[in-house]
Amino acid sequence: WQSTVYSMVVFSATMVVIFWASVFLYTSFYFTFMPQESITWPIHFQFKSCENEPGICSNPNAVIPVLDPMRGSLLVRGQKYRVVVDLEMPESPVNQRIGMFLLNMEMKNQGGGTLRQSSRSAMMRYKSELLHFISTTVFAPLLLYGLQEEKQVVTVELFSQYEEDPLLPLSEVYIELASRHVELYAAQMRIHATFSGLRYFMFHYPLIAAVVGIGICMVFLSAVVILSWYQFSGPTFSPVQP
Amino acid sequence: WQSTVYSMVVFSATMVVIFWASVFLYTSFYFTFMPQESITWPIHFQFKSCENEPGICSNPNAVIPVLDPMRGSLLVRGQKYRVVVDLEMPESPVNQRIGMFLLNMEMKNQGGGTLRQSSRSAMMRYKSELLHFISTTVFAPLLLYGLQEEKQVVTVELFSQYEEDPLLPLSEVYIELASRHVELYAAQMRIHATFSGLRYFMFHYPLIAAVVGIGICMVFLSAVVILSWYQFSGPTFSPVQP
Amino acid sequence: WQSTVYSMVVFSATMVVIFWASVFLYTSFYFTFMPQESITWPIHFQFKSCENEPGICSNPNAVIPVLDPMRGSLLVRGQKYRVVVDLEMPESPVNQRIGMFLLNMEMKNQGGGTLRQSSRSAMMRYKSELLHFISTTVFAPLLLYGLQEEKQVVTVELFSQYEEDPLLPLSEVYIELASRHVELYAAQMRIHATFSGLRYFMFHYPLIAAVVGIGICMVFLSAVVILSWYQFSGPTFSPVQP
Repeated sequence: WQSTVYSMVVFSATMVVIFWASVFLYTSFYFTFMPQESITWPIHFQFKSCENEPGICSNPNAVIPVLDPMRGSLLVRGQKYRVVVDLEMPESPVNQRIGMFLLNMEMKNQGGGTLRQSSRSAMMRYKSELLHFISTTVFAPLLLYGLQEEKQVVTVELFSQYEEDPLLPLSEVYIELASRHVELYAAQMRIHATFSGLRYFMFHYPLIAAVVGIGICMVFLSAVVILSWYQFSGPTFSPVQP
Repeated sequence: WQSTVYSMVVFSATMVVIFWASVFLYTSFYFTFMPQESITWPIHFQFKSCENEPGICSNPNAVIPVLDPMRGSLLVRGQKYRVVVDLEMPESPVNQRIGMFLLNMEMKNQGGGTLRQSSRSAMMRYKSELLHFISTTVFAPLLLYGLQEEKQVVTVELFSQYEEDPLLPLSEVYIELASRHVELYAAQMRIHATFSGLRYFMFHYPLIAAVVGIGICMVFLSAVVILSWYQFSGPTFSPVQP
Repeated sequence: WQSTVYSMVVFSATMVVIFWASVFLYTSFYFTFMPQESITWPIHFQFKSCENEPGICSNPNAVIPVLDPMRGSLLVRGQKYRVVVDLEMPESPVNQRIGMFLLNMEMKNQGGGTLRQSSRSAMMRYKSELLHFISTTVFAPLLLYGLQEEKQVVTVELFSQYEEDPLLPLSEVYIELASRHVELYAAQMRIHATFSGLRYFMFHYPLIAAVVGIGICMVFLSAVVILSWYQFSGPTFSPVQP
């Protein structure tokens, strides 16, 4: 009877150890294998103000250093990324009059060479005067208390499938707004990893992936434990008084 | 009696094998014979912004590479295609003032030579101020919550029966909007295969086509099986103790 | 019995002394360890008025001496700071017409050399005429009695993580508004320490930090008192008639 209790205790303790070891293994695998899903940088546009009139007299441009001084490139090789720029624009008459404008982006390596470039047109969503009247009247309380604002966030996708060349890592991103009649409150650049295969499964179904991954680890560790237990304790049982 | 059961089992098993072989045959025939029905590419228009005033100062144009780097041309020889461009245009005063405008398309081969070209006029649907007032008032809730927008999708058919010359495969498509006063949210090019004959039947009535196709396969395979069965088992029955 | 009262009194008095000593210790540690959270300086812009027309004919600029004559640099080494400028701007047509403008800042050391510079764009929030009408009507009583004003405070972050080099302490800050069509009521510069680790905890949870800190001091002081009590009174008890 004592032996049964003893073996139960040993079994339970072993299972608990195996479980926590599996959790640890899966967690470390997750954080090693999965790249950061999205990284955001603020864009601080630079331009030249006009001398004699209000307004700006050069195309706004900005350089974003994307190389982390500690860890090097933030992009994982073999992973495809979606590069997106968000422009926060007021619904001012100036912005409504510009219509379409181009946003240029150049990906540069450390030597300053251009790796890839892209140029996409963007535009604010049109709102007729009647709709503007209706929406301002309806949302007046929110507008007065600053919970809503007369602005739009224009999202421009510059690259849909950017993949880094390991030999020429991305060092800085040059962004230019090809219009000098634009008014911006703020802007930011986002890079999103587009996961596929196992990474897609692990990112979108983290719970199922964790259960499956920890289960596989536990099966594997249990097999190792059972094999090594037979290896050690087997010989003491089999020779029954030789 | 045992012999009857035995032959029943053999018959059923043969029928099941014949059925699944027919399904497999028909499916592989379908995917070999039927080209992709429609392919869509986004159009990223390029243009030059004006220096001194808002707006654009060159005709928007775009080049779409349609050659797949892996599989070569995406178009199947002997198949006719319909080439269509969708323009997503806001109902802004600028767009309402332009009236008709031309959309030019040039199909180019790898050397840059023009295979075929087409030029079609397009125009936004007119909406009077009264109708605009009524529709904005009626659909105000949808417009305020962004479920509907003050825009139109203008669809222009550039080619109704484009057929690829196997010797000069299509490599890239050049698109130009022959007006610099257009405002676009987005644009896309679609190529649709216009099926005729058997392909038309198989595409528009896939269930009937599948039943007929699998039936034909089964009849053919059954004939083969019966013939080969007579071939092998026949001689053992016919010589009744000579 | 008298002995019990006596020891009770001694114990209570000791505890009170230890408590107040701990409070004193923690307080002095707090004010030594924590830098000033935020420092504010008014910005007095200088410019040249035009000769022949109203308005200003040079970019407004200002120099702020940030070195305290008594204590030297106000910034603590190893501490990251956020440098922010508040511009109090009237909602005048002049300001609404300028759109985006740049604000330049140069951090200078005592010799006049530039340590770091930054240039950020700023803009007043747009308010449509209809919203202006509504807000003026609604807030008319407040506006008439001067409790509210037709102005905006535009906050521009110049540095998000400024860290002082101990060898080249910051001596003065040069600020320039890169537009001569701006109207300002007033302006101020704020430097905020962005706390991390222990400082973050002590700043954002001062009560918990104080309880924990005073507790640790009390434990430490009690240990010292008990040890020294045994040291002194122990020998008188242990040798029971040797």
